[in-house]
Amino acid sequence: MTQAAICTIGDEILIGQIVDTNSSHISRALNSLGIRVRTHQSIGDDNFQIISSLDALLKENQIVIVTGGLGPTKDDITKKALAQLSGAKTVKTDQRQLEIVHRILSARGLDMLEINRAQADVPDTCEVIPNKLGTAPIMVFRFPAERFGHKAVLYSMPGVPFETIAALDDVLEDIKAHFDISDIFHYTLNTFGMAESALSRKIASWEDSLDEDMHLAYLPNPLSGVRLRLSIYGGERSHQEERAMERIRELKEILGKELYYEGDSLAENIGKMLLESGKTVSAAESCTGGLISALFTQVAGCSSYYLGSVTSYANSVKTGVLGVDASVIESKGAVSEECVRQMAAGVRRLTGSDFAVATSGIAGPGGGTKDKPVGLVWIGISSERGTNAVKMEFKSDRKHNIERFAANALNELRKLITKELNY
Amino acid sequence: MTQAAICTIGDEILIGQIVDTNSSHISRALNSLGIRVRTHQSIGDDNFQIISSLDALLKENQIVIVTGGLGPTKDDITKKALAQLSGAKTVKTDQRQLEIVHRILSARGLDMLEINRAQADVPDTCEVIPNKLGTAPIMVFRFPAERFGHKAVLYSMPGVPFETIAALDDVLEDIKAHFDISDIFHYTLNTFGMAESALSRKIASWEDSLDEDMHLAYLPNPLSGVRLRLSIYGGERSHQEERAMERIRELKEILGKELYYEGDSLAENIGKMLLESGKTVSAAESCTGGLISALFTQVAGCSSYYLGSVTSYANSVKTGVLGVDASVIESKGAVSEECVRQMAAGVRRLTGSDFAVATSGIAGPGGGTKDKPVGLVWIGISSERGTNAVKMEFKSDRKHNIERFAANALNELRKLITKELNY
Repeated sequence: MTQAAICTIGDEILIGQIVDTNSSHISRALNSLGIRVRTHQSIGDDNFQIISSLDALLKENQIVIVTGGLGPTKDDITKKALAQLSGAKTVKTDQRQLEIVHRILSARGLDMLEINRAQADVPDTCEVIPNKLGTAPIMVFRFPAERFGHKAVLYSMPGVPFETIAALDDVLEDIKAHFDISDIFHYTLNTFGMAESALSRKIASWEDSLDEDMHLAYLPNPLSGVRLRLSIYGGERSHQEERAMERIRELKEILGKELYYEGDSLAENIGKMLLESGKTVSAAESCTGGLISALFTQVAGCSSYYLGSVTSYANSVKTGVLGVDASVIESKGAVSEECVRQMAAGVRRLTGSDFAVATSGIAGPGGGTKDKPVGLVWIGISSERGTNAVKMEFKSDRKHNIERFAANALNELRKLITKELNY
Repeated sequence: MTQAAICTIGDEILIGQIVDTNSSHISRALNSLGIRVRTHQSIGDDNFQIISSLDALLKENQIVIVTGGLGPTKDDITKKALAQLSGAKTVKTDQRQLEIVHRILSARGLDMLEINRAQADVPDTCEVIPNKLGTAPIMVFRFPAERFGHKAVLYSMPGVPFETIAALDDVLEDIKAHFDISDIFHYTLNTFGMAESALSRKIASWEDSLDEDMHLAYLPNPLSGVRLRLSIYGGERSHQEERAMERIRELKEILGKELYYEGDSLAENIGKMLLESGKTVSAAESCTGGLISALFTQVAGCSSYYLGSVTSYANSVKTGVLGVDASVIESKGAVSEECVRQMAAGVRRLTGSDFAVATSGIAGPGGGTKDKPVGLVWIGISSERGTNAVKMEFKSDRKHNIERFAANALNELRKLITKELNY
């Protein structure tokens, strides 16, 4: 089995200023290709350490993916270290990358400086894959078997996560072209509403019945629920797919429509149903503060069904814009069933949408009471058939409470739409 | 200077199922003690790999902190590997940890099984720091100078993040008691509105004039701009701080208030000014779809100054809720100076806020034209002194265009408030 290591470079990682998410992202991609990731390493912007660490990683792995340290400023030295490691004699300019640098700068209305131009210069020992979203190219160093005891390839990628993610597809293509990789088939089904341990108990006998070459992974995510990934290793693609889909049909039967959904996210699943049926939706958010709206609008094409939202953080906006009765807020409080029902109905009336969802809760850290603790949320859902509300409680910090409130509100909306539109 | 390495153990990290946040957290804590973290490494639950990696890390560092692989099930083998690495002859039971295991199980209403009891057993080569929140104790292995060429200590901590964080204080106390620690001082200044390369040219002569023990790093982030981090290694804390602040004063002078801001994020910077002056803000979002609102509400305590927002994705919401003239949308389009000015003024009137910000643009991937391409955004800002609008253009994918639109809108608002409130 092909083995890989991931090395992220940057002092900001070692002082704990940022969390390294690239390693996790790249690992998932390599694993799905059937490549085993043996180690992650993070090191500083230090020439000696970069060279000695990469040398050690190349001795033990056929593939080493490096991210970071490619900026135009003086503190970034990865390119210089790679030139030394690979025994480069000179630099060459990559014309395709130079054009991209030029395009990026002119789009921002900036002049091309010498340090920008130098971004397209690479050691003569590497091949270049252009980086379409940033100025630093992807460099590919291929080492012959004599050097490390086996053929080895080092990919140097930009470290800014969105550039890394965008560049990864090209790197994976190169890996597929140069390494002998057996097929792995993955199918992912999203679930929502059950914790990992409870879910695993519910599907235990189905999981036990899986064939030897099948593997099930649980991937919990606060914004989308627990994803179940069924993988089949080896065998022919078409046959793998047929066998996987038969198992997935059984799994769906066990879970029932309340617990699983198709599509990459709850917002995408909702969007697809609305688009097909020509219906529309809106949102009224208090404690989720715009996150539900941001999740809707992450989906391209959402303008066909998503009309908009009101973030009614202040009570004056709840009463003045959404039409919540001031007496309700006075007697029951803003975090109450009555208030969230009026918010949902109010935003549906205000925007003229077919469906609406609303949230009012206490994200924390402050603001909780004994009766209404931090983590409490009321979720309202409204359609022309009526308005309903549910209460939930979570125990997390501000950021994660907000995420759980928003995800559960979208899930309640998904269940309502699934039922009313007969999905 | 004392050097440290952090090693996280677990297959779930290497398949990308979880992001390792422990390393970042521990790094911050060690850096603030003046200990330089040289490397992070993540490896699998594999006896040979654990022993060989830790052996290599102990040769290069005086402190090695290990997290993970301490669960009661068979796949967790860190304790066994550490027994082998340290040449343990037998196991001993730590009575304090055994009592904690007992207490945790009875609180959950569970019986004590043999695998639970074994959690309190440790190699006879280590000292124990009890783990108050979990069943696996913290193990401290002290190696004499003969073993690795210098005195070295290995701390093995639980890998569940909340247990790691809770246990870290005790580990830091032990480190302070056993190592001679010098200081590192970091100061971070946020900038916004200038690309990394242009910024580096603007401050080049200042950067060149920094003393030998000072290091400057550029940390770009689409949502907050380019952070500049000045670090001073060695020397006394109070003197470091004084020298750093003198240099930061010079840097601020060069940049000017338009280009830098204090606080962790633009939303936090704006929040602080509003809070101090008792003023309020609201937002009207089209293309940013709720992200500006979500950024405001990430800041705890924002309810004192953030009233709310309208996400007017559909034109009917722009006219019906925000009061934009239908004739403006018909003649100029929704992505126009006139529309975004009316959106900003409209939401300020609707919510009664002192300040307001509005966005209308084309995030893509579809919807662009020659005159109004994907990446174009109009940003409106409004106060009682009047309403203004600026146009910007970016070239990225949907997600990152939305992020840049939102960040630049917050930055325009920041500049307006800084000026009007005399900050």
